[in-house]
This record gives sequence, structure tokens and C-alpha cells, in this order.
Amino acid sequence: MQFHHHGYVSGDPRIQPAAGTGIDRPEELPGEVDVLIVGSGPAGMLAAAQLSQFPGITTRIVERRDGRLAIGQADGIQARSVETFQAFGFAERIIAEAYRITEMAFWRPDTENPRNIIRGGRAVDDTTGISEFPHLIVNQARVLDYFAEVAAHSPTRTTPDYGWDFQALEVAGEGDHPVKVTLVRSAGPEAGTEKIVHAKYVVGCDGARSKVRDAIGCTMAGDKANHAWGVMDILAVTDFPDIRTKSAIQSHDGGSILLIPREGGHLFRMYVDLGVVPEDDKGAVRNTSMEQIIAQANQILHPYTLDVRNVAWHSVYEVGHRLTDRFDDVVPADLGTRTPRVFITGDACHTHSAKAGQGMNVSMQDGFNIAWKLAHVLEGRSPESLLSTYSAERQVVAKNLIDFDKTWSTMMAKKPEEFDDPAELEDFYVRTAEFPAGFMTEYAPSLITGSTAHQELAAGFPVGKRFKSTLASRVCDTNPIHLGHHATADGRWRIYVFADRPEAGAASAVTDFARWISTAPDSPLAATPNELDADAWFDVKVIYQQRLDDIDINAVPAAFKPLVGPFALIDYEKVYGTIDGNDIFEARGLSRDGVVVVVRPDQYVANVLPLTATAELGEFFAQIHGSGKTAR
Amino acid sequence: MQFHHHGYVSGDPRIQPAAGTGIDRPEELPGEVDVLIVGSGPAGMLAAAQLSQFPGITTRIVERRDGRLAIGQADGIQARSVETFQAFGFAERIIAEAYRITEMAFWRPDTENPRNIIRGGRAVDDTTGISEFPHLIVNQARVLDYFAEVAAHSPTRTTPDYGWDFQALEVAGEGDHPVKVTLVRSAGPEAGTEKIVHAKYVVGCDGARSKVRDAIGCTMAGDKANHAWGVMDILAVTDFPDIRTKSAIQSHDGGSILLIPREGGHLFRMYVDLGVVPEDDKGAVRNTSMEQIIAQANQILHPYTLDVRNVAWHSVYEVGHRLTDRFDDVVPADLGTRTPRVFITGDACHTHSAKAGQGMNVSMQDGFNIAWKLAHVLEGRSPESLLSTYSAERQVVAKNLIDFDKTWSTMMAKKPEEFDDPAELEDFYVRTAEFPAGFMTEYAPSLITGSTAHQELAAGFPVGKRFKSTLASRVCDTNPIHLGHHATADGRWRIYVFADRPEAGAASAVTDFARWISTAPDSPLAATPNELDADAWFDVKVIYQQRLDDIDINAVPAAFKPLVGPFALIDYEKVYGTIDGNDIFEARGLSRDGVVVVVRPDQYVANVLPLTATAELGEFFAQIHGSGKTAR
Repeated sequence: MQFHHHGYVSGDPRIQPAAGTGIDRPEELPGEVDVLIVGSGPAGMLAAAQLSQFPGITTRIVERRDGRLAIGQADGIQARSVETFQAFGFAERIIAEAYRITEMAFWRPDTENPRNIIRGGRAVDDTTGISEFPHLIVNQARVLDYFAEVAAHSPTRTTPDYGWDFQALEVAGEGDHPVKVTLVRSAGPEAGTEKIVHAKYVVGCDGARSKVRDAIGCTMAGDKANHAWGVMDILAVTDFPDIRTKSAIQSHDGGSILLIPREGGHLFRMYVDLGVVPEDDKGAVRNTSMEQIIAQANQILHPYTLDVRNVAWHSVYEVGHRLTDRFDDVVPADLGTRTPRVFITGDACHTHSAKAGQGMNVSMQDGFNIAWKLAHVLEGRSPESLLSTYSAERQVVAKNLIDFDKTWSTMMAKKPEEFDDPAELEDFYVRTAEFPAGFMTEYAPSLITGSTAHQELAAGFPVGKRFKSTLASRVCDTNPIHLGHHATADGRWRIYVFADRPEAGAASAVTDFARWISTAPDSPLAATPNELDADAWFDVKVIYQQRLDDIDINAVPAAFKPLVGPFALIDYEKVYGTIDGNDIFEARGLSRDGVVVVVRPDQYVANVLPLTATAELGEFFAQIHGSGKTAR
Repeated sequence: MQFHHHGYVSGDPRIQPAAGTGIDRPEELPGEVDVLIVGSGPAGMLAAAQLSQFPGITTRIVERRDGRLAIGQADGIQARSVETFQAFGFAERIIAEAYRITEMAFWRPDTENPRNIIRGGRAVDDTTGISEFPHLIVNQARVLDYFAEVAAHSPTRTTPDYGWDFQALEVAGEGDHPVKVTLVRSAGPEAGTEKIVHAKYVVGCDGARSKVRDAIGCTMAGDKANHAWGVMDILAVTDFPDIRTKSAIQSHDGGSILLIPREGGHLFRMYVDLGVVPEDDKGAVRNTSMEQIIAQANQILHPYTLDVRNVAWHSVYEVGHRLTDRFDDVVPADLGTRTPRVFITGDACHTHSAKAGQGMNVSMQDGFNIAWKLAHVLEGRSPESLLSTYSAERQVVAKNLIDFDKTWSTMMAKKPEEFDDPAELEDFYVRTAEFPAGFMTEYAPSLITGSTAHQELAAGFPVGKRFKSTLASRVCDTNPIHLGHHATADGRWRIYVFADRPEAGAASAVTDFARWISTAPDSPLAATPNELDADAWFDVKVIYQQRLDDIDINAVPAAFKPLVGPFALIDYEKVYGTIDGNDIFEARGLSRDGVVVVVRPDQYVANVLPLTATAELGEFFAQIHGSGKTAR
């Protein structure tokens, strides 16, 4: 955490000084905004927290509910999401209060006495160290709380506008604020009052029954639900031995339970199989009573029993696998002729079962993906064409998620005798673990994702996948630092410069690169406005091959020690060496001739280039940023 | 973190439900209180945070200042303090914002060119893994903020009463509230108004010029200051390469600097040697200007330069090594005839240099030591004689601290030519590291510290020293857990039962022990009031020698699975197994015949006993708790 460089900060450094639109931010929803986010779920709140970091941008987030969400449906937090929370500064706090999954148990009928279930095996979570972050369970309401705090503590002091229901929108196609949105007061004394808000952009995060989706003419396509589940968050006394371990439980008659222990050490969630729903059911299954669900759970758990003492929440649901074919308002016929103004995220464009614990996670990445792009376009850093990459990138991710979830939820619903091997479910879980952990997203080449032509220079940082953090040794203070953890959600591009062999300051490719990036007219940094710190748009870090004792910080080029803040202080936190026994060059398969790794503001690797490929790097960013100084 | 067992908690689980004196807690300082804490520094705020956990106790903390401390003098946080913060629930947050010391650099004159300083060496911090927590630097104001938050979120909703100046006290020796305290409004429209508060106990945490100390007739004895230091918290540009590493810098003319990098990546503190103060100086050295301090710093740093851009705080100080011979109001003549009513902590009873970064840390442990004792006496759990152990235990600790600091600060002030070996300072630092890290406190046998007769059964948990946490495997959820981290600052005694060889539930010494502790009339648990949860006063955990897969949770005795809360839910978080490759029995030298380790509410090991020594254990607690049920 870096602070004090604008003068001594006495209080909580997480509370940033108000700036720009955060100074005298109006309580009342204004009639004109830059970005209107509709819905304060995980995608909407993440997008708001990200946009709120940009003092020049007016972001408002409207929510139909009249206040904070008290209890949400989602609770699975994959490691990729915890990485994201780290970037927003609250990973350590949510980890402290969450349930942590370290193993998953698989129960099945005892072959000798099929009426009884027995533990078939336990699968260890993340055996390959795919992330340094844990796999968690915590209620969605708390995730939203943390994002709300980030937004409230941001320079723009963004808080949700509760009690507004989205009605309709029109894209006028002209003017500064071309999207005309009609809202209605949903609560309070003014309930029913209509209000028009003119926005530059609208992000629909309004869930499975999204009206924003309808307004831009998107339709959900996919299979109908045919399997129903009762879900309950309960406090109970039981002799089921794995009640505090995530478990897939299959009984002899085909009924099954997915057990999710919850935060706090006592509460747990059960998804109880209610079987195939007949075609002519007409929603009757939704009337399944809590007592029936508990009875079914007891039957599946036999010989163990479940004595429910308190029900925090329960529901019956049948969710199909459904997807829209675009995530923005540009119809196929208009592709290439205009750029989008309206976007949809999360359940508004993709729905699926809750079995793989994916919904909230994928939705948050939708929000992360669109938010920085909107900010860069609104700040004039990037052309509007950047916005077209949102739908292109995220629709594919959603499609893959639905395919995965279909396979997984079908397996969960199978009867034991339908498996070729009793361990089939467990094997599938272990084999495919990287997907539900959130690390199989791999963006295709585009305006913001380079080719893999030079991938061999940095085998451990695949282009298009998220930057997998690794430890390096910070020279200035000898601290071992996770490089990726220094990349906060501040909307900056990251350029990691892995040096070639010579020592710091000697004639070398990295010394030439440093000169180029800080002085060349075709350097991406040349676009950074003069009134901002040199590292305001691009965070450039160098990692030398030497140990820190062999790196003279005074010999390190100025490109890696920018002067920041009103006192023009040296930022020392951009110069790293390797750690004995955990050399990042080895750990990530980096070329000893050096390599440049470019990372997007949402943590995905955008490009891998040789140190000498300055022209190529300049050109890559010229596409994204235009060239030379930009008017802000 | 355990919650939800009283029903679903929607918001931040760190905010406990208000209870007892926290319901309708009066804003105004009442005329009668259980505990009056004078001064809201580190000792006072820790004591308030600890006492605030007891719903039945009225604690008020008065502070002369009219609000929160904006910038404090102390900044060194030893690992022992971070352990303590963990118990109060904010370690992960303060770590995230603090500076972390991983190495210390030692600079001395270049023998070839003595006008220049060169780096003599770097010493790695905590090479022996004495704590799993880091060594930090963060301003005292932030430490106080966190304790204030803990107190405010506690059941009693305790907040400081700002703007009250302590004037005097009298111990009447009779009645329920025998300490009569005179306070005066120090700020606001009512400044000068007097108020009398009657307290059961008073804790003086009012610093080096303590009026509480004076009121109980204690005097500070020790050497006078003879060395002055200029101290400054600054933002500067420099080419001194270790500006972000803690450094001891000695120049050729004997001038020296202790450099402490601070939180946030830019600020740092320098203690600049101003030399020996003449006897007849009469405080003139305190008029040393900021410019003079900076000039002196530049001279010491030669050939490097320091260009100061902003001064957050500066001061000149000369502090002697001074100590009171008692920390409470019981004069030697009255020892044994009465128990104390007034206590003093921190700088009120011990002062020394800031060089070893000890002040705030030792003060906090003073507060931790007295607070739980007051609570247990006030709740009727323990006899008043418990309170006499405070002065007995902490006065010795302060004496040792002063002895250590004398040696260290004398060495820091020595001229290079006075050392036999240029590395002498560095060697001393490394050799004695456990002391400044806070782990050399070792309480002598007393009412609450047993003998070392059975120490060989648990060599790694020395009686009288703090319980060094180690990982074990929690059976219910397969999580690797630091046993010590589960011990929050809730005022409970901990009884760690390390099992003998047989598996859980089999006939064994631990099975017998479990039966005894949950049913015997001489078990310490027998004192716990019936209306409370079985583990309300004593947190009893079992650690089996087996791996978790070989432990049947259903076979574990009920003593280790208490029913808690209104729904009588099983608390599963008390049953542990060992971890492959990190067996706690090996790591802590525990007997394979089992052993009981008793730990105090302030984390010190109180006793080590064989599993069969139930009579001895019962007797130990009979002294502390009386026997049988206690009226509350």
C-alpha cells in the first residue's frame, strides 16, 4: 500500500482523498451521468468500485431494492475472485471471515449395504498451486459490502442509489449523453415517480430477468430447466461426519446432495436433489415445502440424520442453461459500423446451475472487464472501439462456463449405477479443477490481446490468461513481494520488464529499453498527460536476474524510479531482484535474454515481447491509446 | 471466526451484537464505573478493547485530548504485538498497511576513506522463525484506531471519553466503588468543570508524566538522560541506497542515525544523534532546529545527501531509563494485607530510549496483562489476589527492558573506534533478536503460573512464556489451522489437550481426561455458570497424534465438541489432527503419552501437566477460580 507521498495521512490509508466528481458529489441521482450501472449485484458493484477510482467520471449505480442486500443466493468464491479482491484491497479481510475449502468429500452408497452412504474419497483443492489464494465460501451480501466500501472510500465517493427501478432505455445515437434511461422510484414516499437519466453508457447488471437486456433486444437461448433442487441455508445438529467439509453425496435411490459449509463455523447450505421435473409441472415443484426438502435430505444422508434447528434461507429452483449471443447493444448487422453504448453482464446474459459455484465469480469478471474499458474511453485514453472487445471476450467465457456446468450438473444428477466407475465424479472434479477455480479464461487476439508469437520468452505468462503472480525480491526494502499483488485495481496498464543478464545500469537490452520507454515519442508513456505522474497510466516495473544484494539501486535507470506526487519523491517499489530458491525466471519460464510482459488493468496478460521489440510495443499501444498526448 | 450460531448474521461478523452494559450505553461519563482507564495510548486502548468484551462490566476510558490521536511518536511493532493484534482480529489489516522489516542494514565509516559511510552488512530479521508474524513499522495512531474499532464493535460498545483530564484520586478502602477520581473537562464549552467518578478499579495509562502514578505515591527512579536525539518523520529525496531499509548508520566523527522506513513507501523516520548533553544544558538541546537536525543528518550520511521535501513531525528528546518499583497502589508495608485498586502501565511506570522500538509494545502487554485479570475478578471468577500478580509480573519485564535498552542505546551512541570489532553492533542485534521481538518475557511461578516440573512433556511450550502457535489439521473441515490464532482475546483460558497414542474414542488417557473435565466436580469447567455455554470460560481443544483421515469425529468425546448457542449446535472447531511433514508433536517436542498445556487469556503458558494429573489441574484452577459454581 503506497501513501503519504502527498503529505502525511493520519487516518485509514484505504480512504482516498475525495477528488473530481467526489467533491460535493450530489446525493440526488443527477439527470446526466457518464455511466449508469443498473443493479448492485456482484458485477454491478465491482464495476462501480472500479469506475469510482477515476475522479473525472460520474458513475451512478441504481438498485431497485431500497437498501443493502441482507442475504444473497451466491456463496462460492473461486481463487480467481480472491485474486480480484486482493486488487481491490479486501482479500485479507474476506478470507478471515470466509469458509475455506481445502478438500472436497465424495460420498456414495455402500456397495455392501446400499441404503447407507459411505465416504468414497476426498479430493484436495488446488493441488497444483494454481493460485496463492484460497477457495472460499462466503455470502454474496458480504462481497457486495466490501465492494461498496471500496467505492465509498474512492476519490469519487460512489455509493449506490437505492430504490430506483429500471424501466426502459433508448439509444439516441447523438449528443454527449445518447442513452436516455427511464427509472421509477421503487420505494419510499416518492414510489412510482418517474425520472429520466441521460447517460453516456449503461451497464445492465440487473439479473436473470434483466430489463436492460430486453431493452437492447437480446434474448436468452438455451435449454429449459428439467431438474429441480431445494436449497437451504441452515443451522442443524447432525452426525454426518463431513458436515463441515464440502461434499457431493449420492444415495442409492439416485437422490443427491451438494453440501456447502458456510462461513462462521456453523451454518451450511445444502442443494437437495428434487429430481426431474415433468414437462407439465408448471412450476408446481417450486411449492416443495421446507419439511419435504429436509425429509429428502435425511433420506439421502441415511444412516446419518439431520436435525434442523434454524433456517436462514431456502428456495426451490430450476435453472436452465441460457445465454445471449451478444453482451451489448450492437446488433450483428451493425458490427463494425458503430460501437456499443449499452452492455449486459452476469445473469442478465448467462444463467446456469449453481452447482459449480461459478455465477458470482464469472459475473464479477464481466464487471471487471467492462469497467476499465469504459473508464479509458471516457478519459480519452482509448478509442471507442475498445468497448467492442467486451462482448467479444466475455460471451465466449460464458459459453464455456455453460458447457462446463452442463457436464458437471448432469454428472451431479446421475444415479450411482450410471457411472462406469464409482470415482468418476471425483476424478472429473480433480481433472477439471482449473476451470471452476477461474483460470481457464484465455482471451483471443484482439485490439488488446497480442499474438503468441513470442510466447516462448515467457512460457509461464500465457498471453490472454490472467497474470499468475510470483514472488520477487523488492530491492529497496528487501521484502519478498508478490508482483501481482502490487497491481491494484487502479485502472493502470502494467509493463513488467524482465531484464537480460547484465547487472543493473550496465550496457544491456534492458538499459536500452528503459531509455526508449521514458523518452521515445513512440513509447506508450508519451501519451500520459504532463500534469500527471509519469506512472499514472503505465506502471512499469523491472525485475533483474540478480539477487537484491547485487543490485545497485542508484544504477537502475530512472524509467524504473519515477518521481511521484507534489514533492517529486522517488517511487522505489518498481525495482526487483530474484529470490534464492524461488527464482521468478525459473518459476515462470522467462528468457534469460529478457522479456517484456504487458498486463491489462483487469490482470490479463496482453502481450509478451522481446526487450528489443520496442517498435512492436509502441505500435500495440498506438492502437489502444492513439499516439502522442491525448486531450483529457 | 465463528458466528451465525445465534442465528444468521447478515453484516460484518466483527461487529458483535450489543449486550449488557452496551445496550443503551450512556454517552455521558457516568458517576460510577467498574473500571476507569486514564489515557488512551496503546496500553489504555488495549485494556479498553479487552475489557469491552465483557458485557457485564462498565469500562470507561478518559483522555485529556479532545479527540483521536492524529500522529503519535511510537512506530515499532514487534512480532509479539502482531500476535496480539491477531487475537483482537486486526493483524491482517495492519500488516497490509504497515512497513515490514525483513532485514536491517549496518553502515559504518569506510576504513579507506573514513569521511564516507559504507554498508557493513545486513542482518536478516527473525532467522529462527520465532513467530509466524512479521516485524512492522506503523504509526501509533493507527494502532489506536484499530483498538478503538474493536472496542466500539464489542458487546459493550465502548468508546473513549475525550476531553477529560485526570486530577486526583483517593482509595477510600470501603464500599463497592472505593476509588474516588476527580476529573476536569479539558476541552469544549465546559472546560474547567470538575467531575467525580467512583470506580472499582483505576488503570493509569497516562504516560511519562502520569498523575495517576503521583496519586498513588510512586516515583520514577533511574539515570538521567545524557544523550539527545533529533527525531523527524520526513519525505525526502536521497541517494542513500538503503533509504527504505531499517539502518543503523555510524559516521567517522561518531555521529549516528537510526533510520526507520515507514508505512506507505515514502515516509521515513530518522533518529539523529545530537551528542552528549552537558550537565548544565538545562534543556537547551531541545531548541535544536529542524535545519540543524537535517544538516547533522547530511553530515552523517556523507557521501550521500538528503533533500528534505516535507516534515510530518519532528522533536528533540532526551529520555532517561527510569522505572517505578511497583505498578500498583499497594505499598510494600501493605503487601499481603490488601489487594490493589489502582494500576499504572506503560510510560507511567517505565521509560527508556526509543532505539529498540520497544515502548508501545511493552505498554500494550501491560494493558493485556491487567485487563483480563480485572475482568475475571469483576465477574467473580477469580479472587482479588489475582490482581497482585500484575505488578509482580510486569515490573520485572520493565526492568529487563530497561537493562536491554541501556546496552543497545549505549552501543548505538558509541563511536566506531570504540568497538573492538566493526561488526559488534550487528552481532549484538542478531544475537539478542528474541528480546526486542518480544519473546523473552517469562513469568515466574505464581498463582497463575505453574511450576516447570512437567516441562519435559512439552519442551516447546515453556511455562511462563507466550504460547508459540503451530499448525494443526482441523478435522471437521480439513483446514490447516494455526492453533494459537483460534485463541481470540475473549478472556477465556485455553486448555490444549494433546492426546496419547490410541485413536480417538479408544480407551486412553485422553478419553479418561475428557470424561473428567466435562463431569468431575473438581474440573475447572464445573465453575462455569449453567446458563452459559460449556466453553464460555474454558476453551478446551484436543489434538490427536493421527492424521485427520484417521480420526472419526463421531468417536471424539463430547468434552471436545461442546454444544453452543441457543440452538445447541456442535462446535466442531476444537478437534485437531497432525499435519504430514509438520507434526505439532515433533515441532513442539510433545510427549507421545499426551500432555495438557494451559494457556492464559493473554496467551502465556500457565501450566504443563500430564493427562493423568487431573487432581493437580483441578487444584491449580481452584486457586484461581475458587471451587464449584460462582455467583456472578
